[in-house]
Amino acid sequence: MSDLDELREQVLAANLALPAHGLVKLTWGNVSGIDRERELVAIKASGVSYDAMSAEDIVVVDLDGNVVVGERRPSTDTPTHLALYRASGEIGGVVHTHSSWATAWAQAQREIPILGTTHADLYADPIPLTRALTDAEIGEDYEGATGVALVELIAERGAGELPCALVRGHGPFCWGRDPAAAVETAVTLEEVARLALLTTVLDPSATPLPSAMREKHFQRKHGPEAYYGQHS
Amino acid sequence: MSDLDELREQVLAANLALPAHGLVKLTWGNVSGIDRERELVAIKASGVSYDAMSAEDIVVVDLDGNVVVGERRPSTDTPTHLALYRASGEIGGVVHTHSSWATAWAQAQREIPILGTTHADLYADPIPLTRALTDAEIGEDYEGATGVALVELIAERGAGELPCALVRGHGPFCWGRDPAAAVETAVTLEEVARLALLTTVLDPSATPLPSAMREKHFQRKHGPEAYYGQHS
Amino acid sequence: MSDLDELREQVLAANLALPAHGLVKLTWGNVSGIDRERELVAIKASGVSYDAMSAEDIVVVDLDGNVVVGERRPSTDTPTHLALYRASGEIGGVVHTHSSWATAWAQAQREIPILGTTHADLYADPIPLTRALTDAEIGEDYEGATGVALVELIAERGAGELPCALVRGHGPFCWGRDPAAAVETAVTLEEVARLALLTTVLDPSATPLPSAMREKHFQRKHGPEAYYGQHS
Amino acid sequence: MSDLDELREQVLAANLALPAHGLVKLTWGNVSGIDRERELVAIKASGVSYDAMSAEDIVVVDLDGNVVVGERRPSTDTPTHLALYRASGEIGGVVHTHSSWATAWAQAQREIPILGTTHADLYADPIPLTRALTDAEIGEDYEGATGVALVELIAERGAGELPCALVRGHGPFCWGRDPAAAVETAVTLEEVARLALLTTVLDPSATPLPSAMREKHFQRKHGPEAYYGQHS
Repeated sequence: MSDLDELREQVLAANLALPAHGLVKLTWGNVSGIDRERELVAIKASGVSYDAMSAEDIVVVDLDGNVVVGERRPSTDTPTHLALYRASGEIGGVVHTHSSWATAWAQAQREIPILGTTHADLYADPIPLTRALTDAEIGEDYEGATGVALVELIAERGAGELPCALVRGHGPFCWGRDPAAAVETAVTLEEVARLALLTTVLDPSATPLPSAMREKHFQRKHGPEAYYGQHS
Repeated sequence: MSDLDELREQVLAANLALPAHGLVKLTWGNVSGIDRERELVAIKASGVSYDAMSAEDIVVVDLDGNVVVGERRPSTDTPTHLALYRASGEIGGVVHTHSSWATAWAQAQREIPILGTTHADLYADPIPLTRALTDAEIGEDYEGATGVALVELIAERGAGELPCALVRGHGPFCWGRDPAAAVETAVTLEEVARLALLTTVLDPSATPLPSAMREKHFQRKHGPEAYYGQHS
Repeated sequence: MSDLDELREQVLAANLALPAHGLVKLTWGNVSGIDRERELVAIKASGVSYDAMSAEDIVVVDLDGNVVVGERRPSTDTPTHLALYRASGEIGGVVHTHSSWATAWAQAQREIPILGTTHADLYADPIPLTRALTDAEIGEDYEGATGVALVELIAERGAGELPCALVRGHGPFCWGRDPAAAVETAVTLEEVARLALLTTVLDPSATPLPSAMREKHFQRKHGPEAYYGQHS
Repeated sequence: MSDLDELREQVLAANLALPAHGLVKLTWGNVSGIDRERELVAIKASGVSYDAMSAEDIVVVDLDGNVVVGERRPSTDTPTHLALYRASGEIGGVVHTHSSWATAWAQAQREIPILGTTHADLYADPIPLTRALTDAEIGEDYEGATGVALVELIAERGAGELPCALVRGHGPFCWGRDPAAAVETAVTLEEVARLALLTTVLDPSATPLPSAMREKHFQRKHGPEAYYGQHS
């Protein structure tokens, strides 16, 4: 199997993980992955159903969005994915869903406050929200401008830090070292969003997790001396 | 297989899709489809369970509601379906459910505000609510009057535009070019209703999606230059 | 198979329907059915799991609660079931669950307002709540007193009318002509409770369904000239 | 099979019960069990997935946390489990999850009020919340300090009484005579938390269950003259 075939299989498996985790309905959502050496991105075709999805439904494009392999039209969100890959060499996979709880925060146009350790295990600060796009941005290159707004957040937070964000009025984008890691972030973000919403129902002005707890949880899982998991 | 048998099979499949998508319980809900050439409508029989449903449970009626094929009594909601088919030649399938989140908006007697792109992918304006029926309408031809109230909304919004509406105090009706398309709208509407309710919990006066975003999402999926999906 | 064996099988099937409908967890909940000729009641044994339940776990008692058939201790709620059977000859099956949404209303000590047609298809008035028990009632014959409080509601509403009620601070009891009908009411009540709670989130003072709609829906399904379903 | 192998199998089965009951996602959560004679604790390895979990993923440690059997690193929460085992000889199994509804109360930093009989069947008082840890405790021995805070609650409530508690900002810990009993408590607590949150939505200042009802339900299931279940 060529490297490109392997990448398409990885991206196919990651796309199929979305309905298995309850993160998508119908044809919504998409996952991509990049081959950094060849600068080629494999991504789900637009509007295809997960029920009978095969490697044929995974299209390969270059970083300008030209289709290199595959008969289908790539996801309409492809320019957003490409903007993320161009902005950071550390991103190997990107996931976009309309998962219910994260999308509710995006639609309410609120960042997700950090209210517990499940959140801190993912990221030690609130999950940010992209700025509003201008009408000109929406009219000219909507999906590209969405990518630009995400890249602005990544730049603000420092490279290699932020694992996901909410696109205002739309829904979550998540990324990681490969497509499977981006899916894991999407699963975690959805649960973090759900916990934060339920917490907000109990206390609309719930107190954020203290700073020492936030750092402890993030560092024990992701820091240089992490002791969570089996990777030494 | 005759055209009518084929229509009954399509309508059977669309009815069975409702419990598979979690949109109905027990015997609730019903899907119909029309053969425009013969002016015959196939619809679920009244009060039958989805567990052992077969083509025998799909009854064929003419546009006045007379049973043409089948031993069973058609759905009590048949006059509502027929009013929709008579009003618009573009409607090929109709779905009615009591799906939880859409029904909550119908019971709260509120239209669903357009708060995000998932909604705009379906329809670029709020999902409307039928007017209250008069006691006379309820007493004389309740199900027909429900259809009349839906047709009034379709007329207000312009033919071929509105894909679904909430019947006040009751639940959603959805339609489309065929029964499968109407089911897809029912799935989408339920998720749109859920997202809007969760958003409202986070912000009771959440800001609607800006007009440029609403148009962009609706047009990229349904407009003359749509680029979502594989249909060129 | 004897009539009693048949009753036990019916009661077993009805008990197993509870987890299938998502109405119970662990060992919670119980269904019974009565043989009116012999005045014998078959009921789930106390504290047994649904996973490996067999007819052995269905105990037969007389109307005073004496075990007639079976090695196991009957449900602790048996005196509540028996009070219902003694009070009304029309009751053939009884279901008790702690289903989440109905139990939330019971815990909030609120009757369920009639906010939509799904409710009216079951019952044309609010779902009532039992009165508080006195400390003496709780101390002396708690489960029997719970039955007394339910029977008081049935008497208030008129025999053969009320299909279910909420026990204050506890959860729902439902009944019907046989165990399967009581389970169907339990499924419906849970969804009615869920719809009412979601509606209340959208509008804390939601307007009840107008009287003409309530009567129309109840009568078209349960009245002398009912036209819902296949039973003419 | 040696006693230790049997304990590992019990702990494996209890861990696998967590996703089956919908209490965990991804690699979150952990169950342990103790062999009181040998003073050895079997516990899930850190960060392993439930999908392909085998007895190899269950590590055995002594009461100081030294690994005695197994190649993997034990759960990061091991010091919390050990603190519980050291504090009370009656604890035979411990479960930790981030189950959604219980975690919402932990994140809102509220104890769970006792609003119904489902709660009283588990415990006759509110489910308590651990105190906040100091920054020094978090920095020095975070997981051990979490155990200390839990043990303080157990001491306050009286040995052998409290079956579970919420760790502030984090999530629930549950325990019992063996791992399976601790899992049953985790399932019950999650539903109690869900019922209490839904009740709170209906009435933010819902009235607690009267004291006589609380005692009745707790005693009929757990008291010296319990008559719930088949254990005489």
